[in-house]
Formats: sequence, structure tokens, C-alpha cells
Amino acid sequence: MREPYEPSGTERVGAFSDAVVAVIITLMVLELKAPESASLAALAPLWPTAVSYAVSYLFIAIVWVNHHHLLRLVRRTTPRLIWVNFAHLFAVSLVPFSTAWIARTELAAMPVAFYAGVFVCVNLAYRLFERDVFAQADGRQVCARARRMARRRSAGTLLIVATAAAVALWSPIAGFLLVCTALVLYLRPEAPGSVLRTTSTD
Amino acid sequence: MREPYEPSGTERVGAFSDAVVAVIITLMVLELKAPESASLAALAPLWPTAVSYAVSYLFIAIVWVNHHHLLRLVRRTTPRLIWVNFAHLFAVSLVPFSTAWIARTELAAMPVAFYAGVFVCVNLAYRLFERDVFAQADGRQVCARARRMARRRSAGTLLIVATAAAVALWSPIAGFLLVCTALVLYLRPEAPGSVLRTTSTD
Amino acid sequence: MREPYEPSGTERVGAFSDAVVAVIITLMVLELKAPESASLAALAPLWPTAVSYAVSYLFIAIVWVNHHHLLRLVRRTTPRLIWVNFAHLFAVSLVPFSTAWIARTELAAMPVAFYAGVFVCVNLAYRLFERDVFAQADGRQVCARARRMARRRSAGTLLIVATAAAVALWSPIAGFLLVCTALVLYLRPEAPGSVLRTTSTD
Amino acid sequence: MREPYEPSGTERVGAFSDAVVAVIITLMVLELKAPESASLAALAPLWPTAVSYAVSYLFIAIVWVNHHHLLRLVRRTTPRLIWVNFAHLFAVSLVPFSTAWIARTELAAMPVAFYAGVFVCVNLAYRLFERDVFAQADGRQVCARARRMARRRSAGTLLIVATAAAVALWSPIAGFLLVCTALVLYLRPEAPGSVLRTTSTD
Repeated sequence: MREPYEPSGTERVGAFSDAVVAVIITLMVLELKAPESASLAALAPLWPTAVSYAVSYLFIAIVWVNHHHLLRLVRRTTPRLIWVNFAHLFAVSLVPFSTAWIARTELAAMPVAFYAGVFVCVNLAYRLFERDVFAQADGRQVCARARRMARRRSAGTLLIVATAAAVALWSPIAGFLLVCTALVLYLRPEAPGSVLRTTSTD
Repeated sequence: MREPYEPSGTERVGAFSDAVVAVIITLMVLELKAPESASLAALAPLWPTAVSYAVSYLFIAIVWVNHHHLLRLVRRTTPRLIWVNFAHLFAVSLVPFSTAWIARTELAAMPVAFYAGVFVCVNLAYRLFERDVFAQADGRQVCARARRMARRRSAGTLLIVATAAAVALWSPIAGFLLVCTALVLYLRPEAPGSVLRTTSTD
Repeated sequence: MREPYEPSGTERVGAFSDAVVAVIITLMVLELKAPESASLAALAPLWPTAVSYAVSYLFIAIVWVNHHHLLRLVRRTTPRLIWVNFAHLFAVSLVPFSTAWIARTELAAMPVAFYAGVFVCVNLAYRLFERDVFAQADGRQVCARARRMARRRSAGTLLIVATAAAVALWSPIAGFLLVCTALVLYLRPEAPGSVLRTTSTD
Repeated sequence: MREPYEPSGTERVGAFSDAVVAVIITLMVLELKAPESASLAALAPLWPTAVSYAVSYLFIAIVWVNHHHLLRLVRRTTPRLIWVNFAHLFAVSLVPFSTAWIARTELAAMPVAFYAGVFVCVNLAYRLFERDVFAQADGRQVCARARRMARRRSAGTLLIVATAAAVALWSPIAGFLLVCTALVLYLRPEAPGSVLRTTSTD
């Protein structure tokens, strides 16, 4: 009962996003270049790359978990949703670049601000995606409280990473720590209205 | 009720194409090399890479949307269809190379002509694919008018990018803008007979 | 009705192989490095890379088509089948290396022999895979004649690429052309007992 | 009958892990750089890269087989399981780096210890994953004996690679051979309680 000219289904959009995210997440590890020397000390200069890789990996993992969570609520992929998704993936595709930049400059001011800026873009695209999905989902699927909580949460993250971008210009370390805070907040299972927690408590 | 020696199904062809396109789209971003310097000015020389990455990303996204749209009409994957698809993916796989070339030469004449030429190849393979799919689909799935519109549209794009290739030899910027025009035309929701629009209006 | 400790299903093996092949096929195009110069002449030195990329792409496409064709006959993935498949993918993963080597040395004797040698390994692993799959499939799925034809065909290809490896040591061009011949033979639709053709004629 | 806010299903987690592992396994082969010279002797200096690639490939293949085997027992993906999986993939993503390091230093002491250390991390994450999956699976799916055997087996591997890490500091070759032993043990079909064997004997 396929309708003619129906846009590609959710599975396809999910599978394609998965593949793009999988490649991006592994591209970042390419920046971790094996040293020529065999001493443990040779690993020391790699710390900015290692730290920024770990943080970016965590960020992309969080994005993936939330993105796919939302995708399960989608009942009909519209052209608009597909394009918002492509915008989202585009923002995510800039993460390896900004990660490499903070690594190479050992967390300098401008690169960290740019890094947080990319997180802002990813979050903006995510907010757009979230709004479109919630507009489709009916009340039975997502209760008003859960929506409000989810929206508040992504708005909070957006605020923190935007602040981080500004703060980084004065103190890159403070900016970077703010970004880490945003990630930890997203992971805390006891966060009220947490998208992930609802499953385990309900 | 599997028939012996039946060629691989549509899902497989779609999934494989997805994976190839996902890798290609993310390989391009590798050209965006993080600068050693931490100043904002260090990003300036990256503009040709950034612009060409964005345009190529958009192009590949459009190709993906249309390709998968067509694939949904396929009821039986024939060996011929599989090979036309491989030819299509081969043309797409040249996009990162041509994108890197226009970026490195800051949109010089010959590279932009070559870049548009790759778009011509992708479109030619797409037209072949489209013809084969329409030959399979019956009238109930795709009405005569929709076919005509879709064909006219891809012929129009082909004409524009071919013109862009020629124009680029005299004025690379004009050629590049023509390529952008072709993309914007493809995105305009109000385009008559647009494959994507049919869903939202019908 | 999932049985405990049942090895992963065919879909998974297929999907994983698809992803590996998709990455390998696109990695090869990375060798096509965009020249710094903007002239058409700057593309000339790329011909060995371009030719070897095209041939290897075609080879991997043929491997993919046949591999997935066989996979459709598999009713139960055994540990043995999974490991033969990993051996097959390992051999395929050496194609980008050998392709880069013939490209860099402009089709020199030893590299072309090595290149054909990798094709020999891929074919050997494929033959093993084919044998295991046919051992599973019953007569109703694949008639004795079709099996014999398919086996003869892959034995023929094996013989040609093995000869190509030997010939390449004396005349690399002749060896390379022999490899191309093997590919063209595989593509010829009128080949007797062709795995792909059976569908269209039967 | 989709429940609201249900976390992504097993298929998605499996497909995403597949894509990440597929990219990682193929990234390693990029370290095998084609020599400029066309002589067979030019391949000789590549032996540490070739050997370490083969061992790492085998390791990742074993990880994949076992991971997906476990995944089939999962009836409900919990947030915890998803995050343990991400930790597992993170550890696996360090394999190309450590592989490149032992290759470049021709199996020097510290790099081999580090290499074995990464295997320890992968195994620790795997143990966590295994425990969570077994906690979900009921007795009918996995009998007590099979669980005990599987646990003992992964504990054994963990012990061997941890020993290998320590030994490597004194004798890198001995450490490397210990790692290989762990892999061979995992492959031996006659290993008692082997996860894979249960299918063929039962």
C-alpha cells in the first residue's frame, strides 16, 4: 500500500544519519596521531587532542541518543524534517574541524569560542528538529509536561553553550569547562523531565 | 518464497548507497584543515574550502533525497538498475576531489568547469536511473504529468550545470553561481511538479 | 521464537559487509589528490590513479553484487560462514593499498603483480564463501547446472587473475589488461550460466 | 503499540555499532601506505604495520562477533546499556591509534604495553556489557552453565591481556605474543562453553 511520491521513511533517515555520525565520530580519532617515539613521554603532547576527542565523542553520543529518541516519535517524514535533519548533520560535521582546532592550539581563546559556537549550531538545529517532531506527535505520545521539560532542557543546554562561547574569549578554560558542564547535565539521570529517565521510572 | 538467483532487494541497494554517500559527504569535511594559529584571521584563508564544502554538501543532500525518493518506486531491482546505481555512486565519489580542487585553487576557471562537469556526470547517471525506475513504475504510482515534470526538472538541472561548466571557463564565479542556482531551483518548494512538493500538497 | 545463542543473522552480516565495502570503496578516492595548479595539464599526472581507481571500483562493485547475491541463499549463518566472510573482507581491505601502489609507481611490474595477487586472495575467499553457501542451499534453490556454472565461472576468474599476477612480472601492462579482461568477462550478460543473467532469462 | 519515550531499539544500537566498527576496521588499513618504490623489497619495512593491522583486524572481528551475539539476547535497550555500548565503542576507537603506534615503533616496549592496555579497556567495557545483558536474559535463554562459561572466558581474556600489558614492558615480543594467544583462545572452536560453539553442538 505504498503511496506514490511518498518521501523516504523514518528508518532511512535514521540509518543515513547513523552512518554519517558513525563516520564523523571515527574521523575525529584520526587526529590522534601515533608518535614516532616509543616513550610514554611521547604521549604527553597529545593531551589536548585526547581531551577534546573525549569531550566531542561524548557530545556526539548525546546528540545521537537524543536524535534517535526523537526520531521514534516521527510518524511521517516530511521534506521539511529531512532538510532540518540535513542541517543538523551539517552542524555535526563541523565538530571534527573545531575539535582539531582546539587540540592544535591547546585550548586557545578563539578556537574554544568557535568550538562552543559549533555546539550552539548543533543545538539550534536540534531545537528545530525537536519542535517539528513535537508538532507531529499527539498528546497521547508525549504529554504536555514532558514536552515542556524536554524543551526547557534543550533551551538550557543552548544557553550554557552560548555562554561558554562568550566566556571562552576571556578564559578559554572556563568556556571549555562550561561546555563540559552542559554535557554532564545532559547525562545526569536525576534531571527532572529527562527524556531518558522517563523510561526507567515510568 | 524466495526465488533462486534473485538479485539483491531494494533495501540492500538503498542501504549500500546510503553508506557510500555518508562516507563521501563526511570525507569532504576532511579538507577543512584546522589552522595552527589560534586567531580568527586564521580562518579567513579557509573560505574557498568552506564555501565549496557547503555547496557540495547541499548537492549531495539533494541527490540523496531524490535518489531515495525514486528508489521507493522500484519494485524489482534488476542487474541493470544495480549497475546504473554503481555508475551514479562513482560519479558522486568524484565530488570530494573536484570540491578540493576548486577550494585549493580558490575557484579558478578550469577547476570550476571540472566541478560543474562532475555535476553533469552525476545528473546524467541520475537521469538514466530515473528513466529505468519510471519504466518499471506503473501509471497508478506515477501519473504521466508527474513523470513529465520530474523529467523536465532533471533535464533543466542538467542543462544548467552543463552551461555552468562552459561559462566557468570564461568566468569561474559566474559558473559557480550557475551551479548554485541549479541547487536553489531544486530546493524551491513552489517549483511546478516538484517531486518533493507533491507530497505536501496532494 | 529466538533460539538461545544463535549466531547473528544474515541481515547483520550483510549490513556489516556493506558498511566495510562502502568505506573501502570511498577510501580509494582519497588517493586522487586535488592538484595545486588550476590548469587542465595538472590532471595529466593523475591518470594512473584515475585508471586504477576506476578498475578497483569496478572490481569491488562486482564483488559486492556477487557477495550479496550469494548471501540471499544463506538460510543459517554459521560461525564458519561469518569467519570466511571476515577473511573475504580482509582481502578486500587490501585493495586500496595495492591500488595506491600501482598508481604511485605508474603500473610497474611488481606492484601490478601484487595488485593481481590481492585479486587472487579476494577470489579465493569468495570461492570458499560460495562453496559454503552452496553446501547449505538445497537443490530446489540452486539447480546443479547453475552451481556448476557459477563455480566454473569463479574458477575461471581465479585462473585469469593468477595468470595476470605472473604475467605482470614480465609485462605489467599485459597483466593489468588481463585483470581488466576478468572484470569484463564477469560483466558480460551473455556469459553462460551467469549468476546475474539467470534472473532476467528465467 | 509504540510507547512514548521508549529508548531506541536494539536494531538501531546494533546498526550504529556496526557502522562505527566498520569505519574503525578500515581506518587502520590507511596506515599501510603504498611505497614510492616499485620493488618487492619496498614492502619489507611495512611488516610491523602489516602484522599489527592483521592482529587488530582479528581482534575487532572477534569483538564484533561476540558483541552482536550478546545483542541478540537483549530484549529491551536501557539508557544504561546504550551508554555502556558507547564506552565500548570508545575503547575500540583507540585501537587504530595504538596499532599505528606499535607499527611505527616496530613493536617497542611502551607502545605494546599501551596496545595491550587498550585491549584491557575494550574487554572491561565488554564485561560490563555482558553482565548487563545476562542480567536481562532469563534462564531459558541462557542456562547458568553457559553464563558461567562465557563469564569465565571473558575474565580469562582480560587476565591474559592485562598480563600482556605488564610483560610487554620487559619483553614487547612476549607481550605481543600473549595478546595473540588471547585471540587464538577466543577462536578455538573446542573451547569449553564457547558462546559460538553452543549453536553447533546443541
